[in-house]
Amino acid sequence: MSDGNGERARLYLEDLAAGQVYRTGSLTVDAAAIKAFAAQFDPQPFHLDEAAGAASLFGGLAASGWHTAALSMRLMVDSGFRVAGGLIGAGGELSWPRPTRPGDTLRVEIEILEVRPSRSRPQQGLAKVRNTTLNQHGEAVQVFAATMVVPRRPAGGG
Amino acid sequence: MSDGNGERARLYLEDLAAGQVYRTGSLTVDAAAIKAFAAQFDPQPFHLDEAAGAASLFGGLAASGWHTAALSMRLMVDSGFRVAGGLIGAGGELSWPRPTRPGDTLRVEIEILEVRPSRSRPQQGLAKVRNTTLNQHGEAVQVFAATMVVPRRPAGGG
Repeated sequence: MSDGNGERARLYLEDLAAGQVYRTGSLTVDAAAIKAFAAQFDPQPFHLDEAAGAASLFGGLAASGWHTAALSMRLMVDSGFRVAGGLIGAGGELSWPRPTRPGDTLRVEIEILEVRPSRSRPQQGLAKVRNTTLNQHGEAVQVFAATMVVPRRPAGGG
Repeated sequence: MSDGNGERARLYLEDLAAGQVYRTGSLTVDAAAIKAFAAQFDPQPFHLDEAAGAASLFGGLAASGWHTAALSMRLMVDSGFRVAGGLIGAGGELSWPRPTRPGDTLRVEIEILEVRPSRSRPQQGLAKVRNTTLNQHGEAVQVFAATMVVPRRPAGGG
């Protein structure tokens, strides 16, 4: 499997350790992107219209939480956190402490919480990671404490 | 706030009870949609290309989990589960037991697990719900056990 970024080192389970922190680049979200995502996947008034947002619990136009999640994934895929075999999550605990707003600049901090080999599958292991998506004020807009499937380094390879 | 569906009854906290199940309609996902979402938000080879998918842990082209999540949200927004004030989640436990594949037809079952008034905010409460996204074989592709913010019925209103 080629991913077009062969020059950059890939991370195996043996490369990860609790306490490590990886940081992604950033991206800025505008109102048009918030509305376009919402029109396709979450067409509720407070994600589509400034006035409806202002009248809602959010107090202004707010991105769908799933938009924040999708943008966070994009930041991670484009980052230096390049796990061998890809970023494959089994799921985890997701929270949105506050919404993403038009003009917000987002980035993700990836903290490795726990690493353990799989008992049943000797070629892989599991990493618990906490991916915190932050806005330009350093406030968390999403926290995803996820379990990832990570390959072990092949003997003589990697 | 108008949502263009004023004729359909909205659900308040008092209308929800543990054990209730709501069902959405369905939608079918094709390979082009899987690749388009991935190109924008999760550009990893196994979400973009059949051959790369076949060579991966997924054994074939697989939708991004965030695509499954976004489609599940769309099904819920279009469904009869019309909570007053909108479908607003604070987060929850998310899992993807298997991937969404090209040609899959998805629907969501929404089960109310627990309903309780807020102690600090008398005008609203919290509902714990389990949203299970199923494919055409009745297999779960996503389970999201979420906490939702739900308004209480206003005195004399609703």
